[in-house]
Amino acid sequence: MLLCVTKQQQFYMPIITITTDFGEKDFFTGAVKGAIYAEIEDIKIVDISHGISPFHITEAAYVIENAYKRFPKNTIHIIGVDAELTPENKHIAVLLDGHYFICANNGIISMLTNKINPERVVEITIHNHISSNFPVLDVFVKVACHLARGGKLDVIGKSILGFLPEKGGLKQLTGLNPVINPAGNQLKGTIIYIDNYGNVVCNITKKLFEDVGKGRPFIIRARTATFKEVFSTYSEAIHFDKDKNVREEDGKKIAIWNSSGYLELAIYKSNPSTVGSASTLFGLGYRDMVTIQFETK
Amino acid sequence: MLLCVTKQQQFYMPIITITTDFGEKDFFTGAVKGAIYAEIEDIKIVDISHGISPFHITEAAYVIENAYKRFPKNTIHIIGVDAELTPENKHIAVLLDGHYFICANNGIISMLTNKINPERVVEITIHNHISSNFPVLDVFVKVACHLARGGKLDVIGKSILGFLPEKGGLKQLTGLNPVINPAGNQLKGTIIYIDNYGNVVCNITKKLFEDVGKGRPFIIRARTATFKEVFSTYSEAIHFDKDKNVREEDGKKIAIWNSSGYLELAIYKSNPSTVGSASTLFGLGYRDMVTIQFETK
Amino acid sequence: MLLCVTKQQQFYMPIITITTDFGEKDFFTGAVKGAIYAEIEDIKIVDISHGISPFHITEAAYVIENAYKRFPKNTIHIIGVDAELTPENKHIAVLLDGHYFICANNGIISMLTNKINPERVVEITIHNHISSNFPVLDVFVKVACHLARGGKLDVIGKSILGFLPEKGGLKQLTGLNPVINPAGNQLKGTIIYIDNYGNVVCNITKKLFEDVGKGRPFIIRARTATFKEVFSTYSEAIHFDKDKNVREEDGKKIAIWNSSGYLELAIYKSNPSTVGSASTLFGLGYRDMVTIQFETK
Repeated sequence: MLLCVTKQQQFYMPIITITTDFGEKDFFTGAVKGAIYAEIEDIKIVDISHGISPFHITEAAYVIENAYKRFPKNTIHIIGVDAELTPENKHIAVLLDGHYFICANNGIISMLTNKINPERVVEITIHNHISSNFPVLDVFVKVACHLARGGKLDVIGKSILGFLPEKGGLKQLTGLNPVINPAGNQLKGTIIYIDNYGNVVCNITKKLFEDVGKGRPFIIRARTATFKEVFSTYSEAIHFDKDKNVREEDGKKIAIWNSSGYLELAIYKSNPSTVGSASTLFGLGYRDMVTIQFETK
Repeated sequence: MLLCVTKQQQFYMPIITITTDFGEKDFFTGAVKGAIYAEIEDIKIVDISHGISPFHITEAAYVIENAYKRFPKNTIHIIGVDAELTPENKHIAVLLDGHYFICANNGIISMLTNKINPERVVEITIHNHISSNFPVLDVFVKVACHLARGGKLDVIGKSILGFLPEKGGLKQLTGLNPVINPAGNQLKGTIIYIDNYGNVVCNITKKLFEDVGKGRPFIIRARTATFKEVFSTYSEAIHFDKDKNVREEDGKKIAIWNSSGYLELAIYKSNPSTVGSASTLFGLGYRDMVTIQFETK
Repeated sequence: MLLCVTKQQQFYMPIITITTDFGEKDFFTGAVKGAIYAEIEDIKIVDISHGISPFHITEAAYVIENAYKRFPKNTIHIIGVDAELTPENKHIAVLLDGHYFICANNGIISMLTNKINPERVVEITIHNHISSNFPVLDVFVKVACHLARGGKLDVIGKSILGFLPEKGGLKQLTGLNPVINPAGNQLKGTIIYIDNYGNVVCNITKKLFEDVGKGRPFIIRARTATFKEVFSTYSEAIHFDKDKNVREEDGKKIAIWNSSGYLELAIYKSNPSTVGSASTLFGLGYRDMVTIQFETK
């Protein structure tokens, strides 16, 4: 893993991560890893997810946002979702928060750039007019290996930082931001992600909730489900001082601030394939509305 | 992978494995790996499984029992299933058979400790009253990296080895052990695992079977299916000397001692999504009963 | 990753890849990796796929064919599909195109050997009459580690290169090759693979199509679907000069030459679990027929 000459000169290769909608069966991910190792023998490749729903940009954005920040600085993140090069879907490389992201300019990176200003953004121009139907393999791997070797962004593209979306700048995902009503007593969000346990994640962050709510009582509504409290952990809602038989441990519905800081509606210890989950029991799907009504004085 | 100074001083970092019910889609596993690499650049992380059914302790126990022993000694195994810290679900670290296990004290480790005495067991006490809804990331990673660096168990917890379960000792999974009738001619077991091929694994080991059976003829019953022979390999049941058309190669039901030493009821070359599997064809599910009746003299 | 003594003497261990039908839940893959690391501490293991349908030799052949060639030469590929040793299913190791393949002699390697002559083929003879129901763990790992250390094929088996299939030589998968009619104006192929997006891959290559078609107009038929053009990329079929509302971007059916050089029938941006896919919308499954009729002058 290290190219050692003496202990002082150790140089660690950065990590390359991969997030795609390739699934777990096809040869795509294996081919991508093989191509990276063929370029750089001594590199670490980490799968973040290959289970993104096909072409689901919002899911990919949520997954990469919450995974990338745990990695060391200088990590290079390949995002292979909706990546085919078209006149409306250019390839970009972004330096943000000390990490590199390689993806299509389809809004996938806007969940991050809405919160943290990117340091550099380039449109990738190394295609040489080669059309490819496997751009993650043919283009993203080359860019990632170039960056892993310490190469510069300028070499592989032209800066589009600060450009308007219609002028080739970063595109925005729509529907990512919740809406505050003029009276300042209501937040309207939408469901942006459903996790492995069937828990639903809403685009309302704890910070926004506290900024708008200012400590007022509130009620959260999502279809027929309502919540008057948001917990910090799943088990906080369980009364461990009561006997197991009376404390409704399984199947209890709860709202929590999840580990990403987002509002999550959950069933305590839910298993989607047996007892059901928040998603199935509340009838909540992607893009469904969640409102928080704060008490007016 | 090695921190080389001279050849004599090579020190290899131990491996960290991860077994969870996180599934293949969410950011959880990626975040955990990122956090480990952020602490120790030069370590090997190996996924054992992220497909454990949500909160399914027995499945996790079976998977880790059969995977851990193939790894080199000193490997550190993170088990992220039902891991939220509660008054009834403490975090523990266990040294057993030269391997480290980091998990919740929910019985998950008892399938191992029933067979091999642990060398050390500590309740993890590094939480600092921080409540977290992602304990694998916030607690288990820290403990794993501490151990990987050669740190001691004493530093991260207090010994509970030998304590009774109700006094904070290791909890037991119930229903793990088969029952022998007083006459010594019947074994009652239950199904503890169903694998990718739909084959069902029962908690009766070859050793127990031989100890009780002493070579007597027997009949195995699981719902309507019966078996009078237990094979060592799947294909042993197939008569390769007969013509392919008459030897019932596909769809033949068999009992075997699987590679873990457990009784397994199987369909030769079954594919659950097409021709069906032992689980679907015999109507057998998790916790269903399997009995072995031995002939009385 | 390197066993360094001086910079001149660096020796990189080859990569071992794993392709199986083990699925994502069971302990099998974890056990195999543990066993490899227990033999060779400092090696790189890469998962290609564990999502092959149970015992599906053609799927495995397609996946390994398209993944292997991206890896560096000397990579060792374990293929754990239908691998139990029987009188009709011997274990083999194959050196081809500078790569090693370890698998059962069940035809799985014939998709490769039909195109590239193998350099060496041995029947593995290290079993010592040990019957095992987990041959990938008990046999393939040993062979892979032997090769990774620079060991020779002769040591672990006897050459069967050039033997006829009925004399113990390489077995052939049937139905892999498309048929040309005597008049030379029709190609009959079959579907050999369905990918994560539900796109169907047919065993007709671009090379064969061009050799037979010689530039003539043609019509492709697969059940009720017909195609008169084969594109190079998915988006080539989309008219980006037209307004988004009129250009039928989603749900457009297309034929393309996929990144593997095979004919693929696809739905642009299909998601099998929502809008449907080529497989579901055209009603096309594994082994279904695809014909290409060329115009006669």
